[in-house]
Order: sequence, then C-alpha cells, then structure tokens
Amino acid sequence: MSQFRKLHGTEMDRLTVEHYCGSPKHPIILMLHNIRSMWNVGSMFRTADGAGIEKIILSGYTATPPRKEIDKTALGAQDTVAWEYHADPREALKSMKHNGVRICGLEIAEGSHPCADLTPSDFPICLIVGNEVDGLEEELLQLCDEVLEIPQYGTKHSLNVAVAAGIVLFELVQIYRRAM
Amino acid sequence: MSQFRKLHGTEMDRLTVEHYCGSPKHPIILMLHNIRSMWNVGSMFRTADGAGIEKIILSGYTATPPRKEIDKTALGAQDTVAWEYHADPREALKSMKHNGVRICGLEIAEGSHPCADLTPSDFPICLIVGNEVDGLEEELLQLCDEVLEIPQYGTKHSLNVAVAAGIVLFELVQIYRRAM
Repeated sequence: MSQFRKLHGTEMDRLTVEHYCGSPKHPIILMLHNIRSMWNVGSMFRTADGAGIEKIILSGYTATPPRKEIDKTALGAQDTVAWEYHADPREALKSMKHNGVRICGLEIAEGSHPCADLTPSDFPICLIVGNEVDGLEEELLQLCDEVLEIPQYGTKHSLNVAVAAGIVLFELVQIYRRAM
Repeated sequence: MSQFRKLHGTEMDRLTVEHYCGSPKHPIILMLHNIRSMWNVGSMFRTADGAGIEKIILSGYTATPPRKEIDKTALGAQDTVAWEYHADPREALKSMKHNGVRICGLEIAEGSHPCADLTPSDFPICLIVGNEVDGLEEELLQLCDEVLEIPQYGTKHSLNVAVAAGIVLFELVQIYRRAM
C-alpha cells in the first residue's frame, strides 16, 4: 500500500496558458539587468511562471526571447510570463517608483538585509538581479529603496543567479500571501 | 553620497576552506538521485556550500566530482562540501533513518506539504531530489517520512531542479535556525 503517490500533471490544478495570462498575479516584478547566460534567463522565466509573478523586465545586454537557449530552460514559460525590454533600466525604475513600486536590489551590500524583514504592506516590489559575476551595478544600487541579501554560511560569496532569484521570489510570495 | 555600497569578498566574513571544513553545519543532507545534468549537480554543490549543510549524497547515475562540467558551476564548492556516492540509495536511506534522520522527498505527491510546516525539532533532515524530468522514483518515495512540495501558481508543473533544491534548502535552514 503506497503512502505517497506522485501526481500526474493533469491532477495538479495547474492553469492553462489562457487562464494563466488572465489570472491575478502576485505584485512582484523581476528585473534582469545585464545577465550574460541565456540559460539563466530561461530558468528565471520558468521560476517566474511557478511563482505567479506579474512581469519580467529585461534590460541592458540581457537577451530577449525568442532565443533557443532561453526556450531550452524556460520550457514554455517565455510564452506565459509577461515581459518587456528596456535598454536603459533607469527610466523604467523611476517610473515604477513613481507608481509606488518598492525597488529592491538583490546584492550583498552595506545596509542590505534578509527579505524575511519585509511585510505584505511593502508590496508591490520590483526585484532587480544583476550580472552573474559582477552583481548589481553601483548606479542601480543607488536607485534601490532597499537591498535584499540571502544570509549565507559558506566559503563562496554568491549563489547562481537563477537559484538566488528563485529563493527570494518564493520567499516574497510567501510573505505577500500572509495578507491573503 | 552612497546609500548602499557593495561589499567586497573580503568584507563578507566568509569562511576559508580550512575553517569551513571544520565548522559546525546545519543538520541537513542533500541527496541527488539520478540527476542527469552535471551543471545542475555543480550548481547544487554551490548552493550546499552557501546554505552550510552537512553533506551531499550522490546516487544512481548522478555524476561525481571531479568533472569539468560540475566544477564549472560549483566554482570550488566541490572541494568544500563533504560528499559521498552510493550506487543504490536505499541502504544509505535506511541507515540514516536508523540514525534518526528524517527522510524528506521533494516532489508533488498525494500527501505532500510545504516545508513551512516543519519545525526545528524535525531535524536532522535528508532532502532527496530526483531526476530533472521524471522526479523522484516511486520506490524512493515510499522510503520517505514526508514529501515536501513548493507551492506553485503557474502553468508548469515543476521548477529547475537546482532552483527547487535552493528554495527548499534555504527555507529549511531558516526553520532550523529559529531554535538557535
């Protein structure tokens, strides 16, 4: 007698593409600035779909769909997650700020703090992640309302950018849903 | 005047390899069973270092270090994180169970629940993640004490395995540290 049984895709109550596009999203925007690897971009599309966030903003030299390398790791999420591209992210950030979106960089910096400190009233949030090697540029860091970091306990100074974005996005979703 | 300043590696109080190997770890073991992609394996080594967990167990056809594809994404964590290989994971799981380790599969299954339900008294924990496409095998699922799932809100049925492992490992670390 089986204690646990894996669910088939059809049993998971997942949304169809049509329903997903029209369904309410968590008020979170993910900005990918100067991300070098298209596999990372695709992986973050897949994560954004799973976390049910509003939109992805691609900026700087981050590649945009359709690209076969993005599709390979996005597995269809490049068609379900809303996205837009801005060569220069500063105007988009200022406009979001003006509309009451809290701009949160993901970086280890003086004054950065774990996202567990946020509350549902801090949303809507735009989470900016930067380049795999150099992280977020100082100039963008200065446009942030807060800088979020993931407490770490090892010898390295960073996580893979798609892993880090996944950890923070799913934690933000949990925090937001406390108020639901 | 800069509000936020990025920290340099030397300012982050990260552990040296020597200190890391001798330092106390979070009582979490990550088992990677039948993982096809060596990039995913390497990425999970890097995550395991950052989360400060005890050990990685590689099993089935999961590749083991040293392999250049693993090194490429582990970025040195293959040398700092303790690991062992078991072709057949069942003996290792039974022995951990015997020693009071709670065996938690990561899968969407009947009876699975979010890891937010766990408490510090549920540790030590072994988290098992399975193949990128097929997930955890039924036979291993039946050896689990619990099955953990990540609540998802999109059209897909899964996240990239390294992203999913990162989300759960860092949540487990937060839960464990509540008792510290």
